[in-house]
Amino acid sequence: MAHRVAKLQQALLKHGVDAYLAATPVNMLYLSGFSEPPLERLMFLLVPQAGEPYWFVPSLSAESAAANPAGWQVRYVWHDSEGPVHQLERLAREQNLETAVIAVDDEMPALFLLILQEVLPAALFRRGGEIMAEVRARKDALEIERLREAARLTDDALASGLERCMPGVSEWAVALAIQRALHEMGSHLAFGIPIVAAGENSSKPHYTTGHRPLQLGDVIVIDYGGVYEGYCNDITRVVSVGAAPDEAKKIYAVVYEAHMAAREAARPGVPAQEVDRAARRVIQQAGYGDYFVHRTGHGIGLSVHEPPYIVEGNDAPLEVGHCFTIEPGIYLPGRFGVRIENVYVVTETGCESLNAAPPEHIREIG
Amino acid sequence: MAHRVAKLQQALLKHGVDAYLAATPVNMLYLSGFSEPPLERLMFLLVPQAGEPYWFVPSLSAESAAANPAGWQVRYVWHDSEGPVHQLERLAREQNLETAVIAVDDEMPALFLLILQEVLPAALFRRGGEIMAEVRARKDALEIERLREAARLTDDALASGLERCMPGVSEWAVALAIQRALHEMGSHLAFGIPIVAAGENSSKPHYTTGHRPLQLGDVIVIDYGGVYEGYCNDITRVVSVGAAPDEAKKIYAVVYEAHMAAREAARPGVPAQEVDRAARRVIQQAGYGDYFVHRTGHGIGLSVHEPPYIVEGNDAPLEVGHCFTIEPGIYLPGRFGVRIENVYVVTETGCESLNAAPPEHIREIG
Repeated sequence: MAHRVAKLQQALLKHGVDAYLAATPVNMLYLSGFSEPPLERLMFLLVPQAGEPYWFVPSLSAESAAANPAGWQVRYVWHDSEGPVHQLERLAREQNLETAVIAVDDEMPALFLLILQEVLPAALFRRGGEIMAEVRARKDALEIERLREAARLTDDALASGLERCMPGVSEWAVALAIQRALHEMGSHLAFGIPIVAAGENSSKPHYTTGHRPLQLGDVIVIDYGGVYEGYCNDITRVVSVGAAPDEAKKIYAVVYEAHMAAREAARPGVPAQEVDRAARRVIQQAGYGDYFVHRTGHGIGLSVHEPPYIVEGNDAPLEVGHCFTIEPGIYLPGRFGVRIENVYVVTETGCESLNAAPPEHIREIG
Repeated sequence: MAHRVAKLQQALLKHGVDAYLAATPVNMLYLSGFSEPPLERLMFLLVPQAGEPYWFVPSLSAESAAANPAGWQVRYVWHDSEGPVHQLERLAREQNLETAVIAVDDEMPALFLLILQEVLPAALFRRGGEIMAEVRARKDALEIERLREAARLTDDALASGLERCMPGVSEWAVALAIQRALHEMGSHLAFGIPIVAAGENSSKPHYTTGHRPLQLGDVIVIDYGGVYEGYCNDITRVVSVGAAPDEAKKIYAVVYEAHMAAREAARPGVPAQEVDRAARRVIQQAGYGDYFVHRTGHGIGLSVHEPPYIVEGNDAPLEVGHCFTIEPGIYLPGRFGVRIENVYVVTETGCESLNAAPPEHIREIG
C-alpha cells in the first residue's frame, strides 16, 4: 500500500494539505488493506504529508487495526471509559496538528468532524473527496488484478440467470439465481439485487426487479455486478426469450456499435467526455438520440460509482489505470430497452475490457 | 407529521438549540414523510425552534420535495449552475441563522457540514444525534401501526423458510426462501440476508449464512426482519431438523424463560437496564451466564438499531411508545446456540409483542 500513500502524499503537497484523515471504511481499506464496518466510535488512519501513516482507534479495534496488511502503526488508542478527546489532544500536540490544514473524507459522519473541530479549534478542515478520488481513480496492478477477478466472477454468474430465462419464470427468480451463483463462488452483489427487467419493464432505465413472468418474445435487460476483495464489477446483458423481435435486433445492433465506438475512443489523454460523445454520435445518427437518456459510464473500483465519469462536461483526460463502465442504451417507452455494459481499464495504447466481450447479436434463449 | 415536529421543537427548546438541520434520508422521512436516497447534493429540512419547517433543496429535487406529505414548504432551491452557496447565504440572512445554534444529524456527510460552516462562520454547529434519537424513540400511533405491519410480514415469511428446513438443503437456500417470501409480499429485508446458522454455526452469535447443508438433529438459528413503509422488524426463531437433542430442549427452555422474564419487566418508568437484568438473571441462575454474550435488545423503528438500548448501564426509564427487541441467547461454543427475539412496544401498563408469541418449545421440523 506504500505507493498508494505516496500518490496521496504527492496530492497533499500539490493541494497544500498537511494531513489526510481517512475515516470511511473504503478509504481505510484502500490505504492500509484493513477496514471495519462503520462504527459509532471515532477511528481513522492519518496520512501526514510526509512520513508514515498511523492509526487512531477505539480500544475495541486496536488489535485488528494493528494487524493491518500495510503495517501502519497504531499510535493512539482510546477507551470507552474516557472517550476520544484525551487521545485526540495528545495526537494534536505530538504531531503538530493544532494549526494544520487537514483534509477529511467527504462521507465521514458530521459527528466525527464536530469532535475533531472541538479539540482542534485552530486547525483548518477541508473536503478531501476530490483529492482522494483523483488518487483512487488510477488503479495499480493489484487493483486491476482484483477488478479482473471481479469481472470473471460476474461473467461466470450470468449462465445461472440465463438458465432460468423461460416463459413463466419471474424476473425475481432470474435475479435470485444470479445472486446465488455469485454467493456460491464466494462473491456477493456489488449493489442491490440484480436488475432483471422483462418486456416493457426493460424500457425503464431505473426499473427494479419485480415479479412479472417472462413471456415468449420478451427482451430482458440484466444488470448486476459481483465483488472480489472489495473491488466491484458491473455488467449489463440483453437477451430475448425465444426469437427476438426484429426491431430489438436492430436496436441491439445500434447500441452494440455505440458501445464499440466508445471503446475505440478510450485511450490515455482523451477527455472522458469524448468517450461519451463517441457512443452518443452513433445512437444519434441512427435516429435514437432522444432515447439515450443517461451518461455513457462511470468509474468503478472499491465503489460501484466513482470518478472518472464518462459524461459530457468532463474534459479531464483519461489516464492509464482508469477503470470505468461503457454502457450506452436505447429505451423505447412502453416497449423495450437495450443497454450493453462492460468494465474497461485504460492501458498505454487504448483500453482493455475486463469482462468478456459483449455478444455481437442479441442472445436468444430457448 | 406536525406532532413529531412539535416533539422535536420541545427538545430544541430544552437543549438551547435554535434550529435542527435534518439532512439524512431517515430523519427527513420521519419529519416530513418524504425522503430521497443520499445524494451528493446539499439538501435538508430545517426545523426552527418555533414555526414551520421548510426545505432547502437542489433544483432536481424541488418538485418531489414540494409534494412532501407533511406539506412543508420548499423555500430555497439551488441550481447546479450556481451551486448551493448563494441560496445558503439567502437562507442565513432571511432566517437570522448567522449566529444561531444549529444541531445537525450525526450521520450527515462531513462535506455538507464544511459547506455550511463556510457560509455560516459565526453559527455554532452541534451534534443533533441524541436530540433526534430521544424524539424518535417514542413512537406515535401511525409508527406503531407500521411497525405492527412489518412484524406481521416478518412472521408470515417464516413459513417459507421452515418449509426448506430438511436434510441436505443449505443454509443459503433457507435464507433465500425467506427473502423471496418477503419480496412477494411487497416487503424487503431490513438488514443483510437472513441469518441461517445450522448446527455448530448456530453457536456463533455473529455467524453469516453460508452453504452448510442441514443435517438431521441440527439446531438452526434463523434471524431476519422485514420492512413496511420504512419501519423495520427483527425476529429470531430456533428450530431443529427432526427431533431436537435433549440439551437443546433444555437450553431453549432457559432462553424462553429469560425472554419472558424480560418481557414481564418491561413497562413505563422501568430503567432499560432492568429489562436486561431480568433476562440475564434467569440465564445466570440456570448456570449459563457466561454464554449470554450480548445485550438483551435494541430499539427499532426507521433504523434496525436505535435507542433505547436494552443493556446494563442504560438507566433511562422506558416510556410509552418505546419499541425494542428482546433477544436473550445462549451459545455453547462448537455445539449449538439458541436465541429468541421479538419486537415489543411499551404500553401504559406493560409491553405488547408486535410479533406472534415465540413458541414455548423448540420447533421440530419434519
